[in-house]
Amino acid sequence: MRKLKLETPRSFCPVSGCLEIIGDRWTLLIIRDLALGATRFKEFAGAPEGVPTNILTDRLNRLLEYGLIEQKPLSESSKRMGYALTDRGSELLPILGAVRDWGLKHISGTRLPTTEETAKRT
Amino acid sequence: MRKLKLETPRSFCPVSGCLEIIGDRWTLLIIRDLALGATRFKEFAGAPEGVPTNILTDRLNRLLEYGLIEQKPLSESSKRMGYALTDRGSELLPILGAVRDWGLKHISGTRLPTTEETAKRT
Repeated sequence: MRKLKLETPRSFCPVSGCLEIIGDRWTLLIIRDLALGATRFKEFAGAPEGVPTNILTDRLNRLLEYGLIEQKPLSESSKRMGYALTDRGSELLPILGAVRDWGLKHISGTRLPTTEETAKRT
Repeated sequence: MRKLKLETPRSFCPVSGCLEIIGDRWTLLIIRDLALGATRFKEFAGAPEGVPTNILTDRLNRLLEYGLIEQKPLSESSKRMGYALTDRGSELLPILGAVRDWGLKHISGTRLPTTEETAKRT
């Protein structure tokens, strides 16, 4: 896999570099939804956190541009396209897992979604 | 350890909850610097990413408020205070490690700091 070249990296630090891509309030939530099976714009837009659609469009375009997600047919027999994590994007899942674990342990009222809630979204 | 109560949580999702605290461009860089041994305002301000000092002040105050960092004497014989990670803050280190690993693997030109570079900062 070829490495990404940032246009104007702030430093050589890999933490800073990664945060230039995912260091905002919304991007990891999109990655979360993809990991839970969401594929379509309206599914991301329907997340309970209420991402504004202009920001959602921007973040999806950035993720496409960086090769963290791709668009592909929703099924073999379908021409409808959906979003999916690429290999590079899937490698963000350990970050997502560590964020989830910290949240569950330290933030009151957080929990994992039920199977039903996950299914309803997708 | 008592759990944190967010004032206006966007959802029950632990990922969203954690990102309400650390989901910005700068907070994890401050955690990084603390993990590398920085303790004082001017050390954080001197990071190569160039955090604006008003943002740095805001983020340090937020981290104090959430109990992720604390202020304590820099040494037993000193009255000068410095910042340090609390137990709750130290538990962010797996997130930091996962972010670092992804950056090293996927972003061109990233590397770990040398011992010398780390020492110079602190």
